[in-house]
Amino acid sequence: MHDVLTGATPTAVQVLNGPGGHFGDTIVIDDVLTATASRSSSAVGRAMGQYIWASAGNPELLVSMEVVLTSGPYAGSSVTVVGRDDIGAPVRELSVVGGTGQFRMATGYVLWKTVSLDHPNAVLELDVYVNP
Amino acid sequence: MHDVLTGATPTAVQVLNGPGGHFGDTIVIDDVLTATASRSSSAVGRAMGQYIWASAGNPELLVSMEVVLTSGPYAGSSVTVVGRDDIGAPVRELSVVGGTGQFRMATGYVLWKTVSLDHPNAVLELDVYVNP
Amino acid sequence: MHDVLTGATPTAVQVLNGPGGHFGDTIVIDDVLTATASRSSSAVGRAMGQYIWASAGNPELLVSMEVVLTSGPYAGSSVTVVGRDDIGAPVRELSVVGGTGQFRMATGYVLWKTVSLDHPNAVLELDVYVNP
Repeated sequence: MHDVLTGATPTAVQVLNGPGGHFGDTIVIDDVLTATASRSSSAVGRAMGQYIWASAGNPELLVSMEVVLTSGPYAGSSVTVVGRDDIGAPVRELSVVGGTGQFRMATGYVLWKTVSLDHPNAVLELDVYVNP
Repeated sequence: MHDVLTGATPTAVQVLNGPGGHFGDTIVIDDVLTATASRSSSAVGRAMGQYIWASAGNPELLVSMEVVLTSGPYAGSSVTVVGRDDIGAPVRELSVVGGTGQFRMATGYVLWKTVSLDHPNAVLELDVYVNP
Repeated sequence: MHDVLTGATPTAVQVLNGPGGHFGDTIVIDDVLTATASRSSSAVGRAMGQYIWASAGNPELLVSMEVVLTSGPYAGSSVTVVGRDDIGAPVRELSVVGGTGQFRMATGYVLWKTVSLDHPNAVLELDVYVNP
């Protein structure tokens, strides 16, 4: 998942700045999902939604998004993800709270890692486990 | 579901404009649900929450809302809906991620269609399938 | 749950004002959870996320948050909560839509009461029921 806020074709836009620091910052995303961490690997989907800096201290985000698959056996299906991204932790877990298409009424979880960070842009690895 | 942003008694308010176009636009809703597509048909509930334009391209929204029923056998109960509304598609599917009252711990899905559009207002048909 | 918007160390920040009143107001939270309603009782967790005034009338909020436990047998685990807080009602029910750690793939509900209100600050009692 490529979260790109800068450059000519950003996939994420910051829509709110916290009133007294980062607490409250809000970013809306339409991030590209690729098969590997390389941006030039094949696109497999999109992560659409928002994340909010929901911490008075360290960077910890509340993420709400739909992970839409656009190629492969699950193309057209999606999973709904809500959870906390404590970006200082090596691996973070978020909740799969639902899904559509082949993932209708799914539950599950996402394990989420930062592969590389070029502030404010980041490449994230998402391992999604779904119990259909 | 009647999404009305204009007139004397709007049921939806735009709270954010995307920094460089619609990407990031955010609307908060308290939309009226009626039994049929006619606004004068009997009110059956409210859809309360928000939708975000979470796309760098076509209009695709990330919706988070509580659908609260106010009449009929499920009055006082609600379902929690999160998902993507690709408004250019004839039918969209969103996730029912939970519920309250008679829908406690429900899972399910919503099929969502645009019945009529008078930009920026819209009438939507929601068919909610719940596995209680 | 201590929702504190004022003072030197707020745990909640208002990031949006509705365009024509409270409808649309948005608050981002990192509220402290304590064992009892007393702020000096032991901290047991944090409630991180946001609430939106999603009503054209009475104060009714759409809450999206992660309840992270930081002490006790479930330290490090969390539950994901989305739902409506009709703050004029004595008891409100919100949906547990997922969880992490020991609460992976949990469903459940939260019963939510206002213990005390010193506008805009509030102390809330949360009783969380989880079906792991």
